[in-house]
Amino acid sequence: MRIVTLTSDFGTRDWFVGVMKGVILGRAPGVQVVDLTHEVAPGDLRGAAFALRCACRFFPRGTVHVAVVDPGVGSARSALALRVDGQLFVGPDNGVLSWVLGPGRSGVVRRLENRRLFLAPLSATFHGRDVFAPVAAFLARGGRFDRVGPTARNFVRLPWPEAEHGDGWAVGEVVYVDRFGNVITNLDVPALGGGLDNPRASSRRIRLPGRRACRLGACYAAVPRGEALGVVGSSGLLEIALNGGSAARELGLRMGDRIRVEL
Amino acid sequence: MRIVTLTSDFGTRDWFVGVMKGVILGRAPGVQVVDLTHEVAPGDLRGAAFALRCACRFFPRGTVHVAVVDPGVGSARSALALRVDGQLFVGPDNGVLSWVLGPGRSGVVRRLENRRLFLAPLSATFHGRDVFAPVAAFLARGGRFDRVGPTARNFVRLPWPEAEHGDGWAVGEVVYVDRFGNVITNLDVPALGGGLDNPRASSRRIRLPGRRACRLGACYAAVPRGEALGVVGSSGLLEIALNGGSAARELGLRMGDRIRVEL
Amino acid sequence: MRIVTLTSDFGTRDWFVGVMKGVILGRAPGVQVVDLTHEVAPGDLRGAAFALRCACRFFPRGTVHVAVVDPGVGSARSALALRVDGQLFVGPDNGVLSWVLGPGRSGVVRRLENRRLFLAPLSATFHGRDVFAPVAAFLARGGRFDRVGPTARNFVRLPWPEAEHGDGWAVGEVVYVDRFGNVITNLDVPALGGGLDNPRASSRRIRLPGRRACRLGACYAAVPRGEALGVVGSSGLLEIALNGGSAARELGLRMGDRIRVEL
Repeated sequence: MRIVTLTSDFGTRDWFVGVMKGVILGRAPGVQVVDLTHEVAPGDLRGAAFALRCACRFFPRGTVHVAVVDPGVGSARSALALRVDGQLFVGPDNGVLSWVLGPGRSGVVRRLENRRLFLAPLSATFHGRDVFAPVAAFLARGGRFDRVGPTARNFVRLPWPEAEHGDGWAVGEVVYVDRFGNVITNLDVPALGGGLDNPRASSRRIRLPGRRACRLGACYAAVPRGEALGVVGSSGLLEIALNGGSAARELGLRMGDRIRVEL
Repeated sequence: MRIVTLTSDFGTRDWFVGVMKGVILGRAPGVQVVDLTHEVAPGDLRGAAFALRCACRFFPRGTVHVAVVDPGVGSARSALALRVDGQLFVGPDNGVLSWVLGPGRSGVVRRLENRRLFLAPLSATFHGRDVFAPVAAFLARGGRFDRVGPTARNFVRLPWPEAEHGDGWAVGEVVYVDRFGNVITNLDVPALGGGLDNPRASSRRIRLPGRRACRLGACYAAVPRGEALGVVGSSGLLEIALNGGSAARELGLRMGDRIRVEL
Repeated sequence: MRIVTLTSDFGTRDWFVGVMKGVILGRAPGVQVVDLTHEVAPGDLRGAAFALRCACRFFPRGTVHVAVVDPGVGSARSALALRVDGQLFVGPDNGVLSWVLGPGRSGVVRRLENRRLFLAPLSATFHGRDVFAPVAAFLARGGRFDRVGPTARNFVRLPWPEAEHGDGWAVGEVVYVDRFGNVITNLDVPALGGGLDNPRASSRRIRLPGRRACRLGACYAAVPRGEALGVVGSSGLLEIALNGGSAARELGLRMGDRIRVEL
């Protein structure tokens, strides 16, 4: 039984997500539809791209991931399907899918141009329902990937903010703030010179904006309540957290803030 | 595999929706339950009725739609099942189901009086769990529609706000504001004298409250960022939108506001 | 087809819940995953424990319930699986599961120590994904309960706030406030000396903080709009409600407030 995941900025207040599921289940009965999130901020391509990048590797091969953050819906922007590591991704060609590609993760990219797969009539404002849902259903039923349209040679890629490294230091930035106020950076374990299994890990100093600093710990509860620490989070990236509270709120950290680690 | 959709004002903070799914899946294993929305404002019958009206036609025949916005739960209000166009609808007799009926969409209506289908004991405050979920499960398993109870000759209908038309003009009103702040009116494509395939469409003037006006466009991106336009939205109704923003907030539009189109 | 329910404080803004579903469906294809709620306040063990206690009895035998409110994730706190009344419960050993036990509801409790069931590598911050989801999948597939780990002799129990009774009175407290502002107490039908089928029920006086009082009614609509009443709610507990409004807001009621009933 195939899985289709949905990621969007549709929220859950209206019937938009439900209708996408109606189209998918009507065309691919028995498929299991999983919401990644629909609370991406309206138009926030990076937020959706990051969620997809972090989440996709925990789904089985054959999963079809649909991402609809699509402020240009109905305009000249085109739409894509990607095949990467045995999974499929469907969405607009505005970069929202591009962070599932990366070093060691190349994919096959096609443009969604086979209008026979779309709903008719095609609305100008809701391609989630009229384009992406039926194409996802087609692929989840085992439809041939090359039937969706021609190979795409160029497509929009969002730039991934690369961390900088030097002799004994690394500088990254805040790329996501989660619901708990944990602040996720783009510094991965290699950038940190290894995780906590490295004996020098606990002496690393993490410098935050405003002359504050904290140390690396194994888990949120490694420091007293109310204190900040760095942890290697569940996505394999350095997070700044506060035991029992919101690091974002208490420390005033925001998207793009620079975080320096002294190794 | 049958589909059951759920629409309510229960929100997602409590366990109420989960419990309805437990009852449905316990009695109809294998059914697929889809949330349309549970963020209807508490007691907002029109909001739920409109969501159901817009969403239902994108689900396959045989789908059972459950709507629970039910401030009169436990009182003398009765409960209904409708069969319309091969789909089934279950909910209280307070008008919440009535907008799925309409010109060309008549239905068979029955009163839910077969108490053997309900949970026992029957609570006075949660018929979503005790009445509507088990009746939906019964119907989704293929139970006979006439088993739910007797034909209902009279039932509550919410008045649909009809648009007015004249020589060269149409006046409608705001009937829904979505999560993006797009403002949906009751003016459909015939009321507009045809959609954008009509060569005179782009010269139509849409007059908004407060002496403002905008034109009809093909999609949100048809005007520069920050500008307002009218589009024929995904429900086939005229929407007032703002490219890259919230028309409701920026233009101060609200439910019931009058919108005049000069054809 | 087995059911797995999920209860957490993860919210729906991030991809955390979706990823748990990916792990479950990847390891137990065809299982049906139901969200009880993910809007438990961050770290609110009592809120999650109460939701689980109220909801679980509406799910069929064999259901696996996963609860992840886990501020101590990655620390020395251990993790549990319970078997109670033919259902299974999985979560951290911090009390979140403990209210499904109670008078007449004893269970078998085991410690999750079979690391071969977990994801590898095991993160220090997301055991919902790495421990509880794969163990739930194992159990939902019919895996043997005694394989999860050894019997737990001691585990954390949250104290249930017992109501007090006397001659002609009962005093309880507010244990939950729902999305509608209905205020749920720990006074059950026996504490009230029977429900509304008791002929003296309607003369009972319910005393609220601040010298206010109301009577017991059959349903929300039993009093005029805007007036308060007590009802035996859908969980079998006395609720204070306001017809057409929020009792919590209008009456200023909060968690822990004392409610006295004169029988």
